[in-house]
Amino acid sequence: MSNGSVLLVLYEGGKHAEEQEKLLGAIENELGIRKYIESNGYQLLTTVDKDPEPSSAVDEHLKDAEIVITTPFYPAYITKSRIAQAPKLKLAITAGVGSDHVDLNAANERKITVTEVTGSNVVSVAEHVIMTILVLIRNYNGGHSQAVNGEWDIAGVAKHEYDLEDKVVSTVGAGRIGYRVLERLIAFNPKKLLYYDYQDLPPEAVKRLNDVSQLLNGKGDVVQRVEKLEDMVSQSDVVTINAPLHEGTRGLFNKELISHMKNGSYLVNTARGAICVAEDVDAAVKSGKLAGYGGDVWDQQPAPKDHPWRSMDNRDHTANAMTVHISGTSLDAQERYALGVKNILESYFSKKFDYRPQDVIVKDGKYATRAYGQRK
Amino acid sequence: MSNGSVLLVLYEGGKHAEEQEKLLGAIENELGIRKYIESNGYQLLTTVDKDPEPSSAVDEHLKDAEIVITTPFYPAYITKSRIAQAPKLKLAITAGVGSDHVDLNAANERKITVTEVTGSNVVSVAEHVIMTILVLIRNYNGGHSQAVNGEWDIAGVAKHEYDLEDKVVSTVGAGRIGYRVLERLIAFNPKKLLYYDYQDLPPEAVKRLNDVSQLLNGKGDVVQRVEKLEDMVSQSDVVTINAPLHEGTRGLFNKELISHMKNGSYLVNTARGAICVAEDVDAAVKSGKLAGYGGDVWDQQPAPKDHPWRSMDNRDHTANAMTVHISGTSLDAQERYALGVKNILESYFSKKFDYRPQDVIVKDGKYATRAYGQRK
Repeated sequence: MSNGSVLLVLYEGGKHAEEQEKLLGAIENELGIRKYIESNGYQLLTTVDKDPEPSSAVDEHLKDAEIVITTPFYPAYITKSRIAQAPKLKLAITAGVGSDHVDLNAANERKITVTEVTGSNVVSVAEHVIMTILVLIRNYNGGHSQAVNGEWDIAGVAKHEYDLEDKVVSTVGAGRIGYRVLERLIAFNPKKLLYYDYQDLPPEAVKRLNDVSQLLNGKGDVVQRVEKLEDMVSQSDVVTINAPLHEGTRGLFNKELISHMKNGSYLVNTARGAICVAEDVDAAVKSGKLAGYGGDVWDQQPAPKDHPWRSMDNRDHTANAMTVHISGTSLDAQERYALGVKNILESYFSKKFDYRPQDVIVKDGKYATRAYGQRK
Repeated sequence: MSNGSVLLVLYEGGKHAEEQEKLLGAIENELGIRKYIESNGYQLLTTVDKDPEPSSAVDEHLKDAEIVITTPFYPAYITKSRIAQAPKLKLAITAGVGSDHVDLNAANERKITVTEVTGSNVVSVAEHVIMTILVLIRNYNGGHSQAVNGEWDIAGVAKHEYDLEDKVVSTVGAGRIGYRVLERLIAFNPKKLLYYDYQDLPPEAVKRLNDVSQLLNGKGDVVQRVEKLEDMVSQSDVVTINAPLHEGTRGLFNKELISHMKNGSYLVNTARGAICVAEDVDAAVKSGKLAGYGGDVWDQQPAPKDHPWRSMDNRDHTANAMTVHISGTSLDAQERYALGVKNILESYFSKKFDYRPQDVIVKDGKYATRAYGQRK
């Protein structure tokens, strides 16, 4: 006799899942939690068929599901209308970080709890940010394509190649990911590290970065908060976005804000695609206003084949460092978020509901974090 | 009346040099030192025509040259036979770091001074190392090629994607570049940082790295010297080579040493191509023994179109992070080594010969540094 249903929506692994057992985030490997779920008397439903609403398998299964588990990498959008068609739904778990694919206001109306596995991939994303900055500023694409295509034209690569050292780098958002980005950047001896956020970093967090800078680079006082976003981007060689998507960040990097950026600067976005206006970024890269744009998030995922960010580039093919949405789904991260999902289920099945506070996005009809939506 | 000739051999910039005036290392921009050289009564000869010996413009011009300026990126090999045909040659300057393209023993026999611009691109190379490690371990190639080719198969990328955090990373050579690599790696919270070198790092240098680890990662004692190279590579997830090419390092990473490496580990070489045996690396990548190989140095430069490292890869196209030799020639580095060359010329023209000690490789018939050849 089943207690209820758990719906799990993951990307398809196919032969990759066969070949790599650590690929827990693929539908075939089910986060490694089938036995655990069934041992708790629940039925596990799994599918990759999430679009379009309302005729996908997700829509069909949601009619019965008490719990839905989704990911940001291959998001099954839990919309207001889908929630309306899911009368038994009580808990939505994001296997990863970032729950904007769930309509949080609609979840609150129905008092559905939304949780994510905070911290499970913050390091993975921070590493992806540093990688993307280096790929752009050092022109990896130009150097690699010559290497594999039988060419040797050093000048053609070096023309677009700079060092990261002694540059001004800034982050929009200095939370769990943004701070880890700063920790890694400080070792590259930047001229300044700037951040824009709704609150100050704790003084000890700033001191830690400045102390490291003093040790490695012989200079402290490198980290500064900037009050106005326009002021920050206008003095930055590199801007990285590490903020959640909400009403205040959607479309934030549009033509107007980009016009304040330094000519020839770089923009890296591993947060959410919709924080940038796709056409405005595309135009800025093509005009050379931006020397490069990179990241792994797209306003629609999977990104359509004709998404402008796929083909966006400058004349020398050095300005596009996009990847598909992989930064948070390294094999190490998959192990962490699979474990985190199991822990959340444990809290639910035990009826203790003793979730880690930092994992809870909305609960009992209220936002549990200031990171989403409700900050004006 | 000319005092003598300075021969400058640089890569061709073509339209890139026209478009980017900071491209000082291109032949058209002549390191920005023509006026300076001529104002000292010397004639400046420039060419890109360096091969083959003995019928290139380099061979022709060396008959008259008192000073030759070359680069590691586009090396004009100053061989024993070329030195024999250059009776007036007194000074060889490397615009950059790494003078193994000069036959140093032959230079000593003739008491030709060989200098390089130490430090001019150590940061650039260290950054390239970190970039290459991240590109390999996070599978940038797999993620980027899908992005630009209209695909979306997360599992196919994630299958080969790991975090750098909590890995064992080691460097062969902990000198000016190797130490800077360690400084940048420490911020990524590695499990261990190992090094192999003919001498210990200064205790204060080790302490600095461990102090930074304590501040950022909450753990000290991360850095260790390993006596036996086989012992080091057998426990490393990533090995990076930051040693000069000399009799003791030529062909060091051959089939035998690679057999001691961890299965599925990564090898990054931005030092000199000939430190690795090209065919043995190629075989290890194809078999999966190495999960990836990357770097920007080749045993012949320009690398021939059919060099195995151009096409070397695994089945999923995630294991090759080669670039052409660009790591030390960023626009920032070019500015530094152009200035460094001018300073060396100043010491020579003034007849003070007061070179920075760290710039001198051989002088007065003797090696001035233990880094090349004469150790053991």
